[in-house]
Amino acid sequence: MTSPTACLLIIGNEVLSGRTQDANLKFLATRLGEIGIPLREVRVIPDVRATIVGTVNEVRAKYDHVFTTGGIGPTHDDITSECIAEAFGVPWEPQPEAWRRLESHYARQTPPGDFNAARQRMATMPRGVVLIDNVISLAPGFTMGNVHVMAGVPRIMQAMFEALAPTLKGGPPVVSAAVHANGLMEGRIAEGLADIQARYPDLDIGSYPYYRPGGGGVAVVAKGTDSDAVKQAARDVLVFMRACGGQPIEGEPD
Amino acid sequence: MTSPTACLLIIGNEVLSGRTQDANLKFLATRLGEIGIPLREVRVIPDVRATIVGTVNEVRAKYDHVFTTGGIGPTHDDITSECIAEAFGVPWEPQPEAWRRLESHYARQTPPGDFNAARQRMATMPRGVVLIDNVISLAPGFTMGNVHVMAGVPRIMQAMFEALAPTLKGGPPVVSAAVHANGLMEGRIAEGLADIQARYPDLDIGSYPYYRPGGGGVAVVAKGTDSDAVKQAARDVLVFMRACGGQPIEGEPD
Repeated sequence: MTSPTACLLIIGNEVLSGRTQDANLKFLATRLGEIGIPLREVRVIPDVRATIVGTVNEVRAKYDHVFTTGGIGPTHDDITSECIAEAFGVPWEPQPEAWRRLESHYARQTPPGDFNAARQRMATMPRGVVLIDNVISLAPGFTMGNVHVMAGVPRIMQAMFEALAPTLKGGPPVVSAAVHANGLMEGRIAEGLADIQARYPDLDIGSYPYYRPGGGGVAVVAKGTDSDAVKQAARDVLVFMRACGGQPIEGEPD
Repeated sequence: MTSPTACLLIIGNEVLSGRTQDANLKFLATRLGEIGIPLREVRVIPDVRATIVGTVNEVRAKYDHVFTTGGIGPTHDDITSECIAEAFGVPWEPQPEAWRRLESHYARQTPPGDFNAARQRMATMPRGVVLIDNVISLAPGFTMGNVHVMAGVPRIMQAMFEALAPTLKGGPPVVSAAVHANGLMEGRIAEGLADIQARYPDLDIGSYPYYRPGGGGVAVVAKGTDSDAVKQAARDVLVFMRACGGQPIEGEPD
């Protein structure tokens, strides 16, 4: 069974300028792996209309799912939603249910908030969307075709993703097993590791040196959808590391 | 004066799977802004030959500089270097100076280390490279055309970048000024902020809500190469936030 694939678009000048450390990639990569929709590519792009429209159209044709983060707030630099409409060639118009939710939210505030033009933008969406609930700050995300449009603020994005997740149909989940050995050098194990990788062509076996005060080592991670093969490959790595004079330990280094 | 542009390729399954939190994007984005070579796009791609070759060729034609991180170690999943050779259509062959450095390094170890086939891979490079020194772990990175190939481990990457930086010719540095106000909501200031942005078309004015225990607020950042305009725009934002009933403070929130 082939797993569906995913691409993440991180939209925002603040990530490209170094102002903001992205915290969404790791969360989504992990959750998508668990769900069985492995992340195949990530792009970080600026708040520039032609770039967003062109990139969305390129990647939505290439991957089964596209997730976007950022650019759906009320300010002038929040242009993701209107760019999605342009990419799909549909009108960008008030979305009745989102409008109702936001309008009544501001009316309920004491004193009543102003459902002004800027806030109305958050209820304006491409025609034909399905809303993604936002239990944190109300203004919803949306799915348009195979593109899932979410907020950039991590805890809002995470809440939106968990609202969306039950509707996503994944392949077999990706599982992994790690082995690490302090003091063992990557260059010492590289050739034998290539042999182990060759014996498990369906797994992804990665080697990651690490550095710690007082010395480092190397961690090896086997990953794939066949959990028996993953366990056996990790076992083979452990036996091989021992043969290289290392003292391997199961799991990732602390 | 137009600034040269940069693209970053983060190469590695470990970032796409969520195993590893990338720490290179923020560093490079910040340093490239200071040098005056703003980062325009980032892609995270897997250790897959066709993907690396195709992506390198696409982005090196589009941007003045391409920086890559990851995939230049000794193991089977370290394929960046040979992919760069393929992308440029040149042989991948022993690089004499890199070879000399690594060979003598392992010969000097007690007991002498083995300059084995895996380690020799780290001294095998596309024909025509210029080496990038590595004061941390010796094995050099390299520049091929407008593509700068660096390690993925953050402190090695940072050392390589600082070795490379004096050779990079940037435009005017990007400077920024921030203002923030606790308790002020983004939707309240959005329209006035769009007016300020319209008055400074050469600046990038971004609005970023933040959340803290006990309440959040909004931070606004003005960015550009004209430092007087940046200061004046930040001042305008501060005055405007005050008019909205906020108590703005210069700088980013803690």
